Amino acid sequence: MTIAIDAARLLARLKELGATGRDEAGRLCRIAASDADRAGRNLLCGWLRQAGLRIEIDRIGNIYGIWEPDGVSGNPMVMGSHIDTVIDAGIYDGCYGVLSGLAVIEAMQQAGLRPSRPLTVVAFTNEEGVRYAPDMMGSLVAAGGLATDDALAIVGTDGTTLGAELHRIGYAGSREPGFLKPHAYVELHVEQGPILEAEGQPIGAVENLQGISWQKVTIGGMANHAGTTPMVMRRDAGVAAAQTLAFLDRLARDTQGAVATVGTIRFEPNAINVIPSSAIFTVDLRNPDEERLKGQEVALDTFLNGLRSEGFEVTTERLARFQPVTFAPEIVAAIEASAAERQLVCRRMTSGAGHDAQMIVRIAPAAMIFVPSKGGISHNPAEYTADADLIAGANVLLDVARKFSR
Amino acid sequence: MTIAIDAARLLARLKELGATGRDEAGRLCRIAASDADRAGRNLLCGWLRQAGLRIEIDRIGNIYGIWEPDGVSGNPMVMGSHIDTVIDAGIYDGCYGVLSGLAVIEAMQQAGLRPSRPLTVVAFTNEEGVRYAPDMMGSLVAAGGLATDDALAIVGTDGTTLGAELHRIGYAGSREPGFLKPHAYVELHVEQGPILEAEGQPIGAVENLQGISWQKVTIGGMANHAGTTPMVMRRDAGVAAAQTLAFLDRLARDTQGAVATVGTIRFEPNAINVIPSSAIFTVDLRNPDEERLKGQEVALDTFLNGLRSEGFEVTTERLARFQPVTFAPEIVAAIEASAAERQLVCRRMTSGAGHDAQMIVRIAPAAMIFVPSKGGISHNPAEYTADADLIAGANVLLDVARKFSR
Repeated sequence: MTIAIDAARLLARLKELGATGRDEAGRLCRIAASDADRAGRNLLCGWLRQAGLRIEIDRIGNIYGIWEPDGVSGNPMVMGSHIDTVIDAGIYDGCYGVLSGLAVIEAMQQAGLRPSRPLTVVAFTNEEGVRYAPDMMGSLVAAGGLATDDALAIVGTDGTTLGAELHRIGYAGSREPGFLKPHAYVELHVEQGPILEAEGQPIGAVENLQGISWQKVTIGGMANHAGTTPMVMRRDAGVAAAQTLAFLDRLARDTQGAVATVGTIRFEPNAINVIPSSAIFTVDLRNPDEERLKGQEVALDTFLNGLRSEGFEVTTERLARFQPVTFAPEIVAAIEASAAERQLVCRRMTSGAGHDAQMIVRIAPAAMIFVPSKGGISHNPAEYTADADLIAGANVLLDVARKFSR
Repeated sequence: MTIAIDAARLLARLKELGATGRDEAGRLCRIAASDADRAGRNLLCGWLRQAGLRIEIDRIGNIYGIWEPDGVSGNPMVMGSHIDTVIDAGIYDGCYGVLSGLAVIEAMQQAGLRPSRPLTVVAFTNEEGVRYAPDMMGSLVAAGGLATDDALAIVGTDGTTLGAELHRIGYAGSREPGFLKPHAYVELHVEQGPILEAEGQPIGAVENLQGISWQKVTIGGMANHAGTTPMVMRRDAGVAAAQTLAFLDRLARDTQGAVATVGTIRFEPNAINVIPSSAIFTVDLRNPDEERLKGQEVALDTFLNGLRSEGFEVTTERLARFQPVTFAPEIVAAIEASAAERQLVCRRMTSGAGHDAQMIVRIAPAAMIFVPSKGGISHNPAEYTADADLIAGANVLLDVARKFSR
């Protein structure tokens, strides 16, 4: 029997949560463990209670809403994401996955279905990492990747500690993170990229998540007068940096699955008539295949060695490195099967961004469902997914949750 | 008869002037019309008086020291440069030419020579343009290229006007700029570039001065998530800028006489994981040949049109444009002849930087003599020219001044 989530209620809740925690300028800013985050958490917990769920909060502030019908036990089927936001956010990122998880449980309750294991919806703390680094913190702690007390002691950009702020807003729970071990975890999320929209596909079955390599590169050349220094006598750090950027772009276009981005750059002394003595820029390389990602890194190193042999001083600093994540094939297959049944075109795809699912996959089978993001835009008030796509994605989540809680 | 300047006195005065007008941090900062500039001017005027010269100051603050022996008249042979400096300057830029001009007159007086026309040494106001734009202002006004009252009304970076500040420091003179028409003008200057040092040549006979084209280029692309946007769907303004830089570098290497510099760059939003939505950079193109300089500009335009056809929004803003200047061949030949007589290796060369001589050449035959700059460094406390080179250059100036005042 095919059932469906309550579409009108899901859309209304998305709007209501999206209206909660805005600043004086009207910007959505539910930064982790802020007053605005508290307002969003309070709203969510009210809905969880309305659905008759048992609410559990762990010491890192992750909120679990558990549906455990009488006589049902075992590791729960878990759905979720996060409700904290960036500064001036859109209303879908994270919230859509949490509210859809709740909608799935409600739809199963409404249909009188009795699962053979509990179902749980979770909102992880501080996925965005705006105030407290690293991001995806709540799921990382829940998966055992970061000690709870270490995470609570992290000092934020405003000098506060996460632990004190969670306590202040009333969401420092008592359960030990990791107390709940998922039987499976499925995260429904807006794509935050342009692929589904561009290809006209409403559902993405996310089979893996890119590896990420972040570096800071500093190229040292020689400052000199822009008018009096002949080309052959220059060691122009800006030109060397430009050649590196152009190289990385070509390399990514020629490497399967690769993307490469130089998002920040700075020249010194940064004067119109002085040849740059140094150029400092960041490199963001991603690939779902670890060997290919390593290949991109090696190719960059080789290119930089070429600059060194031309007399440039080049230093690199590693800022972040995550290996690619492979999601559970049986969940990915279930997503595809649901989409097929519901006559929704579906594609297997890679997540370019980081998500809580990449942490939870360390302790349980996990995968993600994507729905289209208009123009690929996210972390921006212009973030938008059409209602029909939101509803379709939530119904696929419902099918997958039913399957893994049977 | 070969005579020589008083080397020890020239070197001592360079040091003394270089010690005048330093800030609390010890940096040489004789910014135009500042208290420090007044201190330098006072020192210079004392030396001019000691040499028995008549001091004339025009309304833009240019200081003329005139040696007009009884019965000698006509347009003077003029030597000079400037004594204002950049912030944290070296001691040679400009001052060397002014003090050498004085040394030439003193040497001729000492040798009992009687010129057939007056000799004059001039220190032009605000050559550097640090506080009041444009640079080379005193010589520009003297050459009739900018109305005196307009120049005096110019508001500086600190909100002052040049006229008020010249009045305050006591150097708002009464003579009308242009009152003195040179018979010929010769400016001795440190090269501020690496060529003479690199080629082991002590004297440069400067036959022309590069044309300069300054533009600001803004490339607009599309900001997007660095992880989720496939390469083929990107419009990365940073990569487009990098390709432009690399192109300009190749073009300059392939174009006779050309140099090209991108000294400043900025990405927006300048975040490590966001594809740049825009890149803003400056372009400094120079060539001693106007047609070739135009060719560089056209090639840049064509390249930018290519980016436009790829979907980028490209705008350019002209910041400055000066045509190349050709100096007087008879003075250049006289410089070469003097160097040959003194057994100094000499090369004809192009000035890459702007100098007062390029303004004065509008109203009189003019040329320049260069001496080596260690490492090509200028506008920097590390600016350095060996004493022997300073002395050699001043003696060549002496020969040329004698020839054109005969």
